[in-house]
Amino acid sequence: MAIVEYDGTSYHGFQLQTGDLPTIQSELERALLRITGAAARVVGAGRTDTGVHATGQVVSFRTESKLNPSVLRRALNAVLPSDIAVLLAADVTPDFHARFSARSREYRYSIVNRVARPALERNFALHVDSRLDVEAMSRAASALVGQHDFAAFAGADVEAGATVRNVLAAGCQRSAGDKVYVDVAADAFLPHMVRNIVGTLLLVGHGRLDCGRFEEIMASRDRRRAGPTAPARGLCLVRVNY
Amino acid sequence: MAIVEYDGTSYHGFQLQTGDLPTIQSELERALLRITGAAARVVGAGRTDTGVHATGQVVSFRTESKLNPSVLRRALNAVLPSDIAVLLAADVTPDFHARFSARSREYRYSIVNRVARPALERNFALHVDSRLDVEAMSRAASALVGQHDFAAFAGADVEAGATVRNVLAAGCQRSAGDKVYVDVAADAFLPHMVRNIVGTLLLVGHGRLDCGRFEEIMASRDRRRAGPTAPARGLCLVRVNY
Repeated sequence: MAIVEYDGTSYHGFQLQTGDLPTIQSELERALLRITGAAARVVGAGRTDTGVHATGQVVSFRTESKLNPSVLRRALNAVLPSDIAVLLAADVTPDFHARFSARSREYRYSIVNRVARPALERNFALHVDSRLDVEAMSRAASALVGQHDFAAFAGADVEAGATVRNVLAAGCQRSAGDKVYVDVAADAFLPHMVRNIVGTLLLVGHGRLDCGRFEEIMASRDRRRAGPTAPARGLCLVRVNY
Repeated sequence: MAIVEYDGTSYHGFQLQTGDLPTIQSELERALLRITGAAARVVGAGRTDTGVHATGQVVSFRTESKLNPSVLRRALNAVLPSDIAVLLAADVTPDFHARFSARSREYRYSIVNRVARPALERNFALHVDSRLDVEAMSRAASALVGQHDFAAFAGADVEAGATVRNVLAAGCQRSAGDKVYVDVAADAFLPHMVRNIVGTLLLVGHGRLDCGRFEEIMASRDRRRAGPTAPARGLCLVRVNY
């Protein structure tokens, strides 16, 4: 297994795509092939979308290579593009599977909340120019915690009836430098779930939705009633727990 | 005047260059010309080098434009490249000069101090893979405070005898996420001064120089005795005081 950090700006998401589109998985597999001389299938804990970043993605793969993990880490970092880095590599038991063994995932959504658009963080945050009511957003977010049917926040191509997830923590805070963070941890996430939650929380932050209505939308299981999908660039997979 | 944030990665520094090289000044002058229809000379408080960033650069310029400052700010942000943003624009008295009126400047140098290279901050921090002794670096940095001849930390093309500066504050701290920051504030800086200081502080952090030797090097006024110039990408002009 390995813990991987990446700037997703230039990639078509984590997952392998048809055609020759660059993805995080394709880059990792190419690097492993180059170093070990053998093809290996890489599995990621979270299938991050195009433009989504990670500071703590976890991947698993099988290799016959006799390189010790820290040598493998260094070799991977020497051949991977500069916007992908392996933070740690470790031997694990054969039954470890980055996706199926994961108990929970933690995502952070970053917002620059000020009049001027961000230059330094243009690829890592959403710009919101009117002052957000972060306290109301945080109150609404707390309603997410627990086992619920999150169909209202599910992406278009989700399987009907398989939309129950367990949110372990959800909050919103204002930080230094005009930053606002939305943090959500869950056992697993539906496609676009965090971005749809953030899009709906932003309506709360703008005063266009109160917390009661936010809960109603969630309970309705009706995607059409929730807010728009927030842009990918603000989202980052920060941690996976096993 | 305006406060400007920029990602300096794609620019040949702040200052106008001969030829058609893109600089922060050339982009700001082009944007002003486009909006006001008249050429304006833009003066910056700090002449940041190629690859150096700013979150609080201050610039001054004269314009006959009747646009109010917040409309001008919005218009500039609409035409400037995405890696340059105007955070604030304001009317000032005609004698205000971004460079000559400045009382002090504050720079931050960012280091990612961990085994693996950074992917997300690859253009905004120096990677140091062995653990730095930040306490020793901070002690050495405190010797910089006060009025001193900084010839030992001056760039090659500095005027002899004009190397006295007043450092108001200097420190080094470890922060979350394996970050180490070196912060230096001074009335004014010599070319490459912060980067040469950081290059020498890194020798202290690696245990190759103690604080006494750091002070000796500073007192020697001999550039050849100081450390190498740290890379530009870790440096950011964070604030200018008037």
